[in-house]
Amino acid sequence: MPAPLSVPSDQVRIALGDRSYDIRIGTGLLAAADTWQGLPAAASALIVTNTTVGPLYAARLRASLLPHYKAVFEVVLPDGEAHKDWPTLNLIFDALLRHGCDRKTVLFALGGGVVGDMTGFAAASYMRGVPFVQVPTTLLAQVDSSVGGKTAINHPLGKNMIGAFYQPERVVCDLDTLATLPARELSAGLAEVIKYGPIYDMDFLAWIEANIERLLRREPDALAHAVRRSCEIKAEVVGQDEREAGLRAILNFGHTFGHAIESGLGYGEWLHGEAVGCGMVMALQLSRRLRLVDAAFADRVTRLIERAGLPTVGPALGADRYLELMRVDKKAEGGQIRFIVIESPGQAGLRSAADDVVRGVLADCTR
Amino acid sequence: MPAPLSVPSDQVRIALGDRSYDIRIGTGLLAAADTWQGLPAAASALIVTNTTVGPLYAARLRASLLPHYKAVFEVVLPDGEAHKDWPTLNLIFDALLRHGCDRKTVLFALGGGVVGDMTGFAAASYMRGVPFVQVPTTLLAQVDSSVGGKTAINHPLGKNMIGAFYQPERVVCDLDTLATLPARELSAGLAEVIKYGPIYDMDFLAWIEANIERLLRREPDALAHAVRRSCEIKAEVVGQDEREAGLRAILNFGHTFGHAIESGLGYGEWLHGEAVGCGMVMALQLSRRLRLVDAAFADRVTRLIERAGLPTVGPALGADRYLELMRVDKKAEGGQIRFIVIESPGQAGLRSAADDVVRGVLADCTR
Repeated sequence: MPAPLSVPSDQVRIALGDRSYDIRIGTGLLAAADTWQGLPAAASALIVTNTTVGPLYAARLRASLLPHYKAVFEVVLPDGEAHKDWPTLNLIFDALLRHGCDRKTVLFALGGGVVGDMTGFAAASYMRGVPFVQVPTTLLAQVDSSVGGKTAINHPLGKNMIGAFYQPERVVCDLDTLATLPARELSAGLAEVIKYGPIYDMDFLAWIEANIERLLRREPDALAHAVRRSCEIKAEVVGQDEREAGLRAILNFGHTFGHAIESGLGYGEWLHGEAVGCGMVMALQLSRRLRLVDAAFADRVTRLIERAGLPTVGPALGADRYLELMRVDKKAEGGQIRFIVIESPGQAGLRSAADDVVRGVLADCTR
Repeated sequence: MPAPLSVPSDQVRIALGDRSYDIRIGTGLLAAADTWQGLPAAASALIVTNTTVGPLYAARLRASLLPHYKAVFEVVLPDGEAHKDWPTLNLIFDALLRHGCDRKTVLFALGGGVVGDMTGFAAASYMRGVPFVQVPTTLLAQVDSSVGGKTAINHPLGKNMIGAFYQPERVVCDLDTLATLPARELSAGLAEVIKYGPIYDMDFLAWIEANIERLLRREPDALAHAVRRSCEIKAEVVGQDEREAGLRAILNFGHTFGHAIESGLGYGEWLHGEAVGCGMVMALQLSRRLRLVDAAFADRVTRLIERAGLPTVGPALGADRYLELMRVDKKAEGGQIRFIVIESPGQAGLRSAADDVVRGVLADCTR
């Protein structure tokens, strides 16, 4: 008889030497006592959450943590990418200092990618580093942002420009939390799930195509497989290149165009996953124009992005503005934009492209 | 015939595996071409300096860097510990983004401890990490803060609360820059030089006692020896404990009391080195009250601190306020303050102390 899903049926290991950790994937994990065993000992813990997720899940997490810490504090941030900035980050530092938290205090990031990125950077920086645990409650955070140790805040001139590589002690993906996710956020998360197909695993792409309706209906076993396989691929890539010296950059497929959309419209206008979904369409068209893949392949992935409920046409910011925004992308070097392209189905690479070619893509993909 | 000092006559190695680097100590280093060989290649460099040091030395550094980078930018921060905060740090990020600096851009910290700490944290955080070089122009920065990778900014509730362990590519101590140092800053630097005696090397303490007048007259060979021996000791300690899991804490001798003075008076009222000098007197009295050292030893070191031109009596903030400020010290755990004490001459350790004993010390040492 198979183990019930309420027991952590799945664990994916991120192998990074003395910074290795597990991703636990299952249902009922927030309330399960053994989810929280074996974390670093400390007098206090701080739950960092937001105004949307906090009311739904903070009490459950708090109850599970109380046996382990003398004091469990909480700080509630405003919700949304528009608040992924210094003043909001400083709310975490204020709470840590006001409560007398010390160098051993453990931070718990309860929320989506914004909460995870900010909590991670706060943990990296508070007293030059305290432990933290990711408890992602969105599909996007479970399959991508909570795994791999990238933490950051935005700067008015660029997304994720200020941050650190800093690994969590553990990632806890409780699939139950996806039940309350708005449909738009579910689709945004599917963008990062779909991403793993063209860059790494065509079998997974085929599985997503066959199961996209089940994912949109939030069937637990479909979600469990999507999260696990996504985390496995991310674990393989990050394990080989923690600090993005090379390979890891492929995980940014769609992100160079996507960041320009987010930044150009103002953070929060489009969800990050929506911008990435549309950015992947642009990156596929770029790959096609560079004659790396054929139109059928680009159309196939674009169709899946559309079926996931994501935008496939970008906002008309103007090609000059897109190019300007992309030149401050972190992958750019000496003013040269570097794009993640699909070299062949299931394999991605980093390439430069002439401005004219990029302008052609933008003309095709914006309106 | 001994090599002239204008050739980097001294190099101290910080051995930290793939984060190892050299401290170069000598005169004429800013202008010497070979000082700047072998740093990571990049399209651009950013000199971070302040309104005091910039006009004196930035042009010299810039001229030396121009052969190595297509563009050398500069950002000038307001001077002083009071500006070691987020808005000032953000001036560095603004400059980096405005100039289109990328993930390879090298930052050069030209100034004292504040410039070094802020540039280091900016380098640690910009695009999750770019290389940086320390070019300390104060005695304090040359013998202490530029070495070892501690970077940080202050928070209104505590000093150096937000930062990172992030090692520079190189430290360049040009002793010529000490010629323009105000007398008060020279004395502040001597506090950190003297520190290495009681915690680690009684022979060095005796040497400082014999040479304190020559150091105050800024005789180059005396300064060179003081900087080199200080860096050697710091290298030995940091090489054993980069992230302050244990031994490294001894370098904070005098700093727990000192940080309380700085924070209690408002940053910038006393220089950091002045607060540390006075804090060492308090820590010596604490060591005496804990019967670890005798009065003669405490008086001997106190006398040297006084001869260096440093305050030996602290401001009357009130014992309650001192205790409150010290409880947010980074070494505190679960609200328990941990003091660096002298266990025996030349050896330091970490101890707790009853509040009454600390109150006795404060009664003796403040006015």
